[in-house]
Amino acid sequence: MMLFRHEVVGEVVEVGPEVSKFRAGDVVGVGVIVGCCRDCRPCKANVEQYCNKKIWSYNDVYTDGKPTQGGFASAMVVDQKFVVKIPAGLAPEQAAPLLCAGVTVYSPLKHFGLMTPGLRGGILGLGGVGHMGVKVAKSMGHRVTVISSSNKKRAEAMDDLGADAYLVSSDTDQMAAAADSLDYIIDTVPAKHPLEPYLALLKMDGKLVLMGVIAEPLSFVSPMVMLGRKTITGSFIGSMDETEEVLQFCVDKGLTSQIEVVKMDYVNQAFERLERNDVRYRFVVDVGGSNIEDAA
Amino acid sequence: MMLFRHEVVGEVVEVGPEVSKFRAGDVVGVGVIVGCCRDCRPCKANVEQYCNKKIWSYNDVYTDGKPTQGGFASAMVVDQKFVVKIPAGLAPEQAAPLLCAGVTVYSPLKHFGLMTPGLRGGILGLGGVGHMGVKVAKSMGHRVTVISSSNKKRAEAMDDLGADAYLVSSDTDQMAAAADSLDYIIDTVPAKHPLEPYLALLKMDGKLVLMGVIAEPLSFVSPMVMLGRKTITGSFIGSMDETEEVLQFCVDKGLTSQIEVVKMDYVNQAFERLERNDVRYRFVVDVGGSNIEDAA
Repeated sequence: MMLFRHEVVGEVVEVGPEVSKFRAGDVVGVGVIVGCCRDCRPCKANVEQYCNKKIWSYNDVYTDGKPTQGGFASAMVVDQKFVVKIPAGLAPEQAAPLLCAGVTVYSPLKHFGLMTPGLRGGILGLGGVGHMGVKVAKSMGHRVTVISSSNKKRAEAMDDLGADAYLVSSDTDQMAAAADSLDYIIDTVPAKHPLEPYLALLKMDGKLVLMGVIAEPLSFVSPMVMLGRKTITGSFIGSMDETEEVLQFCVDKGLTSQIEVVKMDYVNQAFERLERNDVRYRFVVDVGGSNIEDAA
Repeated sequence: MMLFRHEVVGEVVEVGPEVSKFRAGDVVGVGVIVGCCRDCRPCKANVEQYCNKKIWSYNDVYTDGKPTQGGFASAMVVDQKFVVKIPAGLAPEQAAPLLCAGVTVYSPLKHFGLMTPGLRGGILGLGGVGHMGVKVAKSMGHRVTVISSSNKKRAEAMDDLGADAYLVSSDTDQMAAAADSLDYIIDTVPAKHPLEPYLALLKMDGKLVLMGVIAEPLSFVSPMVMLGRKTITGSFIGSMDETEEVLQFCVDKGLTSQIEVVKMDYVNQAFERLERNDVRYRFVVDVGGSNIEDAA
């Protein structure tokens, strides 16, 4: 069984009597959410990720009062609503990062009408979500510009990920030359940053989609959105429907994510490397192939 | 001829040889813009208000190098593209405030798909644009909540303008009770103010539409937009097409604006009263019925 904390892939071992969607042996995935109220407006619209009573797959409390523990385990019990089938043609370790990072970038592009080929997209920040953003946007036929604070990631953006352009945000000349050129920017920066330089890159009706949960306030001056009818918005993972869609989208487009598969006994080293930002771009922990007793 | 600085209504006196849309005697209006490049993406999409080379109808420089002087004049020369016909059934003094305030609220409601009857809208701030916002939103069949910093405008919002509810933004209990209840808020406040209290009033996918040009930065924390996929956006007047539409909309809906018609010799007093916010909600200056020589 392949597991990642909240991007979990494994094989169905057993199903309850009311389970109709799956049977033992199916290869399935679980993402960030394992519960919702099923009664609110978001739930009724099948966008359960926006339910105020959603239950996270880790560090949360389940309906039985017990903690949710994510995917670092040899088995996991999950309601079928929050389980997706991994489609044929997608390797389990490839599927894992799609269950959060993949659907997180796919969902806003779909929701905000940004799947049209030929659009010009910006990806701000090149971590786990950003790298997936480049790949998903390229697969939609977009011209993709990676925007980063330095030149350090230029080669990996252009050569490894296939971005079409690379902008250094501190280079005011470069930024000025790119003004009014992008239809959207997926902003994955998880720390306080000014919004005006990125709003300036957007065309009329362009959208700045925030993905970083940032405690400090972000700011902008109102004419930057008014004159050009630009939008600042945000998005949070994606629905179960969209999770199924992005898995199939990746099969159809032959999109693979860049991952490093490790065993359980490497988890502590992996965490140390995560702290240093030393992973391109996701560790996938092969729990099934590990000796869990040893790792614990 | 009836005139207001950038909401001008008058009768066509003479037309040039290439004018096809109008003839002498037509009652017409001119709004905020009298020129644009006709070649950029906004111009080609007929949203010339977003052209970077637009020419304002006052305090700007026209293509001939001369200043534009707005509508405080006995006559005005305007390119037919920036002139709209005042439809039958609309009094000239009633039409004037629609040419800026009216189209300013109509345009974003139309553009962002917010014309559906039954929506719940908020109008933040009750000045010239806000009062028109209440009237236009009510005419679209929305349930309208006026949000204001104090109780002072409650009676005029509810009784005079027909709002359905009134919220005092400093009353945290009232604000908490109204959380997650509005599809959109038209934010007409022209000074720095926090955005979070208003983002909290929006439902999932709700839109906060800024209309105040504010030099100081506005701020918000990213989870307030991400968790609920809410949008902060803005809008700037409206297109010539939308200006024609809002005039007809007001005829169809029997919508009238609240105005005070004055003569030119009252202009200085009117300006003094504007400084004190002492007008409900627009002065319309009847230039044609005034002795301009005296007023000058």
